[in-house]
Amino acid sequence: MGRWKPGAGDRLREAALSLYLERGFEQTMVTDIAEQAGVTARTFFRYFADKREVLFDDSADLEEKALTVLDGLPATTSALDAVAAVLDTVAQMVGGDRELARKRQAVIMANADLRERELIKLTSLSAALADRLRQRGIGDVEASLAAETSIAVFRVAFSRWATATDDQDLQNIIHQTLDRLRTLATSR
Amino acid sequence: MGRWKPGAGDRLREAALSLYLERGFEQTMVTDIAEQAGVTARTFFRYFADKREVLFDDSADLEEKALTVLDGLPATTSALDAVAAVLDTVAQMVGGDRELARKRQAVIMANADLRERELIKLTSLSAALADRLRQRGIGDVEASLAAETSIAVFRVAFSRWATATDDQDLQNIIHQTLDRLRTLATSR
Repeated sequence: MGRWKPGAGDRLREAALSLYLERGFEQTMVTDIAEQAGVTARTFFRYFADKREVLFDDSADLEEKALTVLDGLPATTSALDAVAAVLDTVAQMVGGDRELARKRQAVIMANADLRERELIKLTSLSAALADRLRQRGIGDVEASLAAETSIAVFRVAFSRWATATDDQDLQNIIHQTLDRLRTLATSR
Repeated sequence: MGRWKPGAGDRLREAALSLYLERGFEQTMVTDIAEQAGVTARTFFRYFADKREVLFDDSADLEEKALTVLDGLPATTSALDAVAAVLDTVAQMVGGDRELARKRQAVIMANADLRERELIKLTSLSAALADRLRQRGIGDVEASLAAETSIAVFRVAFSRWATATDDQDLQNIIHQTLDRLRTLATSR
């Protein structure tokens, strides 16, 4: 296996994020990332298809887990409760390391192409959630609305979490944000 | 003024949408659009910066009108009512010609770059709305949430309107969709 070491994926991810932040995403080469992580470029490509995928490689996994959660819920679960359960799972997946999330967020916000990619990822997740909600027998409009709303709640909660100065976890912030949506939607 | 005629902008828009649908967006040239509209390419460029702008040239105007509506509301208006007022204005602006809207939607859905551009447009509108709601003294989270939610409602309502077989107007569908969001957010 040559220079391959256990944990190389995590080291590559950290090296990549630090370099993207320092030098900018465009200016960072795969060889720079590999060097900083103490591996070869060939090892980099065992983990990631390209330097953009370091930032987005978890999205297929995220979507799959989100849909699995939906499938496991009782048939009587309301659309918004279903979405809340999905958001809980997403929070567990992406809410573990705030420092990493903060760096990733800063890198993405600094680059128009990456911002687009992130938007597309969330939109595709929303479409997949809406489809699965429809399969559960939830009406067309309710399904789309619940899915789109969950993305809205996630975006607001995630950005609050990533920029917060206190130590709240993402799951808590998502719960609060959902509650605020409930209040917002009912106040006139 | 050479071959310039009144109404050339509308004719160019219709010609462009028909050609994008027939041949595909990529395959259509500005000269084709101009020819179909009975004007020169030079006339095309008096109205639109490029062939993509035919689809998106109203977005700056839309954002400006939306913000003007917000500024005109009483200070006591709730975040969701403010957003509902904005959506009413947007509906009046884009809800006039369903056939045109349907064509535009079909062209955009068929092309990944155009879908991205549309997403970015809506996200930028959401950010502008949130900023203005904050300036009205609405809390940070509520402002973002109300703005993101309004985009969610708009996306769902617009797509329902553009694909509907009956004759409802966009404003009605937006009202219904907002009501459904209220129901969705309060049911457990």
